[in-house]
Amino acid sequence: MAKTLSDKLVALCAKRGVIFPSAEIYGGVAGFYDYGPVGVTLKNRIREFWRSEFIIKMENIYEIESAIILPRIVWEASGHVESFTDVLVECKKCHTRFRADHLIQDTLEIVTDGKTIEELAEIIETNNIRCPNCKGELTSASKFNLMFKTFIGATEKSENEAYLRPETAQAIFLDFRRIQQAMRASLPFGIAQIGRSYRNEISPRNFLFRLREFEHMEIEFFVHPAQKDAVPEDLWEKVKDLEVSILSIPLQEKEAPAERYKATDLFKQGIFSCKWLLYWTLISYDWLVRVGIDPTRMRIRQHMLNERAHYAADCWDIEFKYSFGWKELQGIADRTDYDLKRHAKYSGKNLNIHLTDENVKIVPHVIEPSSGLERIIQALLESTYIEEPERALFKFNPYIAPFQIAVFPLLRRDNLISIARNICDILRGENFLILYDEKGSIGRRYRRVDEIGVPFAITIDHQTLEDNTVTIRARDSMQQERYAIQELIDFFKTHLKFT
Amino acid sequence: MAKTLSDKLVALCAKRGVIFPSAEIYGGVAGFYDYGPVGVTLKNRIREFWRSEFIIKMENIYEIESAIILPRIVWEASGHVESFTDVLVECKKCHTRFRADHLIQDTLEIVTDGKTIEELAEIIETNNIRCPNCKGELTSASKFNLMFKTFIGATEKSENEAYLRPETAQAIFLDFRRIQQAMRASLPFGIAQIGRSYRNEISPRNFLFRLREFEHMEIEFFVHPAQKDAVPEDLWEKVKDLEVSILSIPLQEKEAPAERYKATDLFKQGIFSCKWLLYWTLISYDWLVRVGIDPTRMRIRQHMLNERAHYAADCWDIEFKYSFGWKELQGIADRTDYDLKRHAKYSGKNLNIHLTDENVKIVPHVIEPSSGLERIIQALLESTYIEEPERALFKFNPYIAPFQIAVFPLLRRDNLISIARNICDILRGENFLILYDEKGSIGRRYRRVDEIGVPFAITIDHQTLEDNTVTIRARDSMQQERYAIQELIDFFKTHLKFT
Repeated sequence: MAKTLSDKLVALCAKRGVIFPSAEIYGGVAGFYDYGPVGVTLKNRIREFWRSEFIIKMENIYEIESAIILPRIVWEASGHVESFTDVLVECKKCHTRFRADHLIQDTLEIVTDGKTIEELAEIIETNNIRCPNCKGELTSASKFNLMFKTFIGATEKSENEAYLRPETAQAIFLDFRRIQQAMRASLPFGIAQIGRSYRNEISPRNFLFRLREFEHMEIEFFVHPAQKDAVPEDLWEKVKDLEVSILSIPLQEKEAPAERYKATDLFKQGIFSCKWLLYWTLISYDWLVRVGIDPTRMRIRQHMLNERAHYAADCWDIEFKYSFGWKELQGIADRTDYDLKRHAKYSGKNLNIHLTDENVKIVPHVIEPSSGLERIIQALLESTYIEEPERALFKFNPYIAPFQIAVFPLLRRDNLISIARNICDILRGENFLILYDEKGSIGRRYRRVDEIGVPFAITIDHQTLEDNTVTIRARDSMQQERYAIQELIDFFKTHLKFT
Repeated sequence: MAKTLSDKLVALCAKRGVIFPSAEIYGGVAGFYDYGPVGVTLKNRIREFWRSEFIIKMENIYEIESAIILPRIVWEASGHVESFTDVLVECKKCHTRFRADHLIQDTLEIVTDGKTIEELAEIIETNNIRCPNCKGELTSASKFNLMFKTFIGATEKSENEAYLRPETAQAIFLDFRRIQQAMRASLPFGIAQIGRSYRNEISPRNFLFRLREFEHMEIEFFVHPAQKDAVPEDLWEKVKDLEVSILSIPLQEKEAPAERYKATDLFKQGIFSCKWLLYWTLISYDWLVRVGIDPTRMRIRQHMLNERAHYAADCWDIEFKYSFGWKELQGIADRTDYDLKRHAKYSGKNLNIHLTDENVKIVPHVIEPSSGLERIIQALLESTYIEEPERALFKFNPYIAPFQIAVFPLLRRDNLISIARNICDILRGENFLILYDEKGSIGRRYRRVDEIGVPFAITIDHQTLEDNTVTIRARDSMQQERYAIQELIDFFKTHLKFT
């Protein structure tokens, strides 16, 4: 049977130490993956590119890093204790548990987004859906909270109950006032957080797509409620010429495909709730394209009213056509003032801003671009993986590639090895990410680094001994050119520049 | 009452958004802290400096990133389920719980390291120690496991039990075989992991020193059991001239102070169990000094036999004289083959290496340098904080400083502001970490950036309008010099170089 792309990527990632199941020697645990050396650097480079573009290079985005374990009161205020649930059914015979919407989707191949627990239960009953494993009867549907619970301190009392955060966003609201005051920030400004989140998924699936432990990169961008269209000209300038595929609510109601739109037209036609929401959608889309995700497999879809979170005034997903279908790659929501007001109410603290010019106190509205690092990695792997007759490779952008330069002595001879190691030291001194390999035929070594997307390979050969030159082989073209050793740093600084 | 240094740092860190209690608006939770923009960048820079020196610039150290939640079997194999405990006593009257050794240390001011539960119980009884809050009687001592427990999946069955890792090391042993094969690594080589760890401490204390959620930076360095002294010349060369304060077991038995030793003498006298252990101790020490931690407040102390973990052949702590006493800053242990053998036994997998040259299978020994990022941050804050008559400042090394350059228009006038913002854009384009501020008197703005250790401040003034020059003010000397705007990038590339 032909392997699917997803199967191939899973196998390749395990073999090459990119990403593989956690606690693998004990059989692994669904929804948990470890990163090997190639995966860690790939993840680090994507994360750093995000930090560079959305935090370091922006004037008014401030980064925080909060605790992952937070007490129960936080999640009561946010609504997660009550609402962060999936609907579960269990087989009465074999006791396997299923997520009701997934079970219906897999069995009937229909879309269930936004359906209530009663609606899901009715579909299961009407269609007499049974356990896919043993055909046993299913229990009635119940709600299951997706947060991992633990206890802080020496006793398992309810007052010590805490949860691992299911998103990084909430801590931003908790720290909002502290950061606004410490940084003397005025509206509009954003607070960003990068870090792990946890969701106790009933059925983790699709490799990196639905995990129990994963990494979020989120920004809460705070704006004056009366100035939600006031995007400064210099920011709008950066996105105004973008053209994107849009799947709005009306198009979805007509079951029509996405339509191409220019940014300026999107704003004029008022398809987004406000211009800041549109700006953050477009700049996020642009970043994803620059990372290397195939724009022909991306579309921007508006949430239908019944799938929209209760706090959102409008919400859009940047979707990617994964090998298993169109799925969310990144969400951008207009969360209004819901979260700040909830935390103000539950904590009894003022979470407003005093505008001295107008002499009023206001609770800002929030635009939230939220992305999952693993979903980006999976979309990037799928976008850049190519099979050619003689090799398989990832065509990563050079500045995103997990290792940047491979260094090979042509033969395993001391004089070539010592020059090769010396070149490694010089390049490592500049913080380039180097992979050194002296074993095996040179052709096989090239294939091996192609397979993990290393953009350049240096080979030290006999001519090096004579004239201090080496060959640089480019991954994509497989062309080799000779350069003097002293030219290497400049060459790579130019060709590996973080754009 | 005079504030202690620690109190001052806590207050300053909160005020300036460096580090402050998690879920602060709900009263916080002991042992959990959030990082604000200044703290995040400080942490990022220390972490990147560690990654650069110990992973990127080393040939055979491979980085992984594992799941934080790992199933119970992992922690049974590692011994943590059984042994990762503290001794607890509870007040029968007010029900406050105390860590027995801390209670004894605080009440009697004696050292309790390495005491058994029976010995601690006896000390409490003999000295009739009572609850420090209400003078109530204490319960008998019991063991309390420090791991945070949770359940994976929809039911709280014992087979779904999992723990948040209390160290990053164990996952390295789990992934050992996968990484060794994927990277075709031969001995000696190391696997590193940077990431959060969790310990449900009974009494978190001393600001960042004893936390419940913190970050580890660990290396497991695998060596041939018969070659534990075979440190290559080029590596030894880097540490051989170091001179350090050593507190060996014999010195501690005599209650003598630490003695100064040269690296070469330490090796000759055989004070360390092997040369690789000595090498990793010295290179770790050297890195800590380069980060900016005061070497006059550091010593290297050998674990006494009764405090040494059961698996360790030898163990040393690099200690720092914190404001609350000498405490561990980093540990370096010779863990032998204990962990790999335990996991081989529990998983039924071969965790050995086949040495083709000798045609034997061996289980490598492990040298483990392990450090906590927050302890480094606290030592760095204590080492670099200085109070002068007119200001307080952190004298961070420029390449570690959380923000690198402050940019100030002298006055809040459009023409100065527009040049200042333009300079910000240029410098941000080079990924420098910039703090822009246009509010308040220039003197007060200088004080504010001194207080968070920003090494350089650029001021745009009237002369800038005439000749395109700005002043650069150095934090430590407070001297100002004029530079042309087009010289700035080169100036900062030179003065902020990551060494």
